[in-house]
Amino acid sequence: MGWKDIKAVTMDVDGVLTDGSLIAFDNHDQIRVFNAKDSFGLRAGRMRGLHLGVFTGGETEGVRHRLEICGVPAEDIHLGCRGKMHDFAAFCEKYGLKPSEVLFIGDDIPDIPVIKAAGIGAVPADASADAQDAADYVCDAPGGRGCVREVVERVLRARKLWHFEEDEYEKIF
Amino acid sequence: MGWKDIKAVTMDVDGVLTDGSLIAFDNHDQIRVFNAKDSFGLRAGRMRGLHLGVFTGGETEGVRHRLEICGVPAEDIHLGCRGKMHDFAAFCEKYGLKPSEVLFIGDDIPDIPVIKAAGIGAVPADASADAQDAADYVCDAPGGRGCVREVVERVLRARKLWHFEEDEYEKIF
Amino acid sequence: MGWKDIKAVTMDVDGVLTDGSLIAFDNHDQIRVFNAKDSFGLRAGRMRGLHLGVFTGGETEGVRHRLEICGVPAEDIHLGCRGKMHDFAAFCEKYGLKPSEVLFIGDDIPDIPVIKAAGIGAVPADASADAQDAADYVCDAPGGRGCVREVVERVLRARKLWHFEEDEYEKIF
Amino acid sequence: MGWKDIKAVTMDVDGVLTDGSLIAFDNHDQIRVFNAKDSFGLRAGRMRGLHLGVFTGGETEGVRHRLEICGVPAEDIHLGCRGKMHDFAAFCEKYGLKPSEVLFIGDDIPDIPVIKAAGIGAVPADASADAQDAADYVCDAPGGRGCVREVVERVLRARKLWHFEEDEYEKIF
Repeated sequence: MGWKDIKAVTMDVDGVLTDGSLIAFDNHDQIRVFNAKDSFGLRAGRMRGLHLGVFTGGETEGVRHRLEICGVPAEDIHLGCRGKMHDFAAFCEKYGLKPSEVLFIGDDIPDIPVIKAAGIGAVPADASADAQDAADYVCDAPGGRGCVREVVERVLRARKLWHFEEDEYEKIF
Repeated sequence: MGWKDIKAVTMDVDGVLTDGSLIAFDNHDQIRVFNAKDSFGLRAGRMRGLHLGVFTGGETEGVRHRLEICGVPAEDIHLGCRGKMHDFAAFCEKYGLKPSEVLFIGDDIPDIPVIKAAGIGAVPADASADAQDAADYVCDAPGGRGCVREVVERVLRARKLWHFEEDEYEKIF
Repeated sequence: MGWKDIKAVTMDVDGVLTDGSLIAFDNHDQIRVFNAKDSFGLRAGRMRGLHLGVFTGGETEGVRHRLEICGVPAEDIHLGCRGKMHDFAAFCEKYGLKPSEVLFIGDDIPDIPVIKAAGIGAVPADASADAQDAADYVCDAPGGRGCVREVVERVLRARKLWHFEEDEYEKIF
Repeated sequence: MGWKDIKAVTMDVDGVLTDGSLIAFDNHDQIRVFNAKDSFGLRAGRMRGLHLGVFTGGETEGVRHRLEICGVPAEDIHLGCRGKMHDFAAFCEKYGLKPSEVLFIGDDIPDIPVIKAAGIGAVPADASADAQDAADYVCDAPGGRGCVREVVERVLRARKLWHFEEDEYEKIF
């Protein structure tokens, strides 16, 4: 695993940026719960030049808006995604990245092809057994409790980029 | 217990597909929280030909809509259910199934007659003591954290149906 | 402690029927999360003839509606309560009960006088240190995860009333 | 550490008064979940004469309203805060307090300068590693589960102010 070679962090949403919970409102909204530690990680990664991408089957405005606040470019937020490998390959080509330069974190069976294809395939601590078997790295944190922050921090530490000047980290939040 | 004989997976909602939480809004909505791992399990089971059925005392549009998204046929979603045994028997008859071919998972006292009648009576890890005493199988996962996924996966593994081709599992989510 | 002498179960809301969480919406709603196991406990207690009462500082329509669904009589739901001892004494007098025949469960400092006055003063597993020190009984379950169900079940078991006929418990939910 | 010298308790919001969860609604609301034990702590601190202040990057009406209910003066609730050190210094000056008389509790990298500047720099049990390294005191409670109540209680106990007369604590909630 080459943490210091990683130039992009990509991810699934349900079970990764959330703990898998879907709040089912009567008006058919499916609401998700994100975590401030991941938000900080994504913004810090973006500020240090990492590319960020999201590939998820879910498709709601709340998810899109939340990800934009965290610094993921609108055109790299792939909602309603069927066939994550296709979107992953297109993302790599767009930024001229080899798969070995991209980390992907997912938690379940639809994520496994990308977990295998990515330079580092990561899973949250509570990922499904099949996803854990396919992964290069199992996070200490479970989904929705900072696993994305954990992998971003690991990449930036490996690249000596996890340090913040006072006037700088005040910009992150 | 004949996991490989199971042709249908049936279930309660509160404490099974949820952790029992009921979010009580001032407009009288009772909102529930589902889990993406169970959604995947239900869709995978459906795709592999399992019959799915739900028997619950709760009765809200959010529940009905969520279950339909997960692939449970509208006519097999029994909300506002009083007397689960009656609905369970009707479900078996409708699909020509013997009770020994049906798994039911429930978590509390109103579920006990069906837990006893079903071929496999399962409970989440945090079911009430009485329900656990009546059960054939206690899940590793608690309610709302993947217990339905766990029993579907167990049935499909026993029947050698838990494998996914890449182009196929992209259809599930 | 005379579990078998208890004829009424009374309780606080935040930290007892909930885990203390208050969801703070921008429109100023303060939304709470209840649990289905407690709902079953309250209804079962009511069906077996226990008196039920609630004394809470909180004051929202969602709480009132939820408690009514669970079988607490509207006139024994005391919201916006300042001075729980006064309401507790009035409740006892109304039903001709001695304090020794009433169980109260609360979790924090405003509950302590009633915890001390009640025949059985109970607290959830995660009650504040001061409340635990004042209590006769510390539940296995924390707030919002079935502690009210636990004390109702204990009372009914002590009184040989915790048994359900099939046609009967179908009425509870 | 001089717990008995503390005259003001100041704090971050996400990960401190909450567990870091952000509920992302489709209408772009970012809803947070507070805890009744912290509410009691803040009100008790206020009643005993502690100054209270909040410095957070978040900026929603729900947060502002919740904090006011808990007794934090409107003018000491700093939302949308960039540069917490500046607001912390202004708060100290306004009340004629030395930094050594002020406790601050925060959970992540943007909080570190204030954690270091405050007389007692505290963190919740689940704060990020960098924040824990900078702290004087690591709470037993994690964010959103009573860590603010814990530090207020510690200050008031050290100053012999953690005792409540019956008619008094009925005013707190």
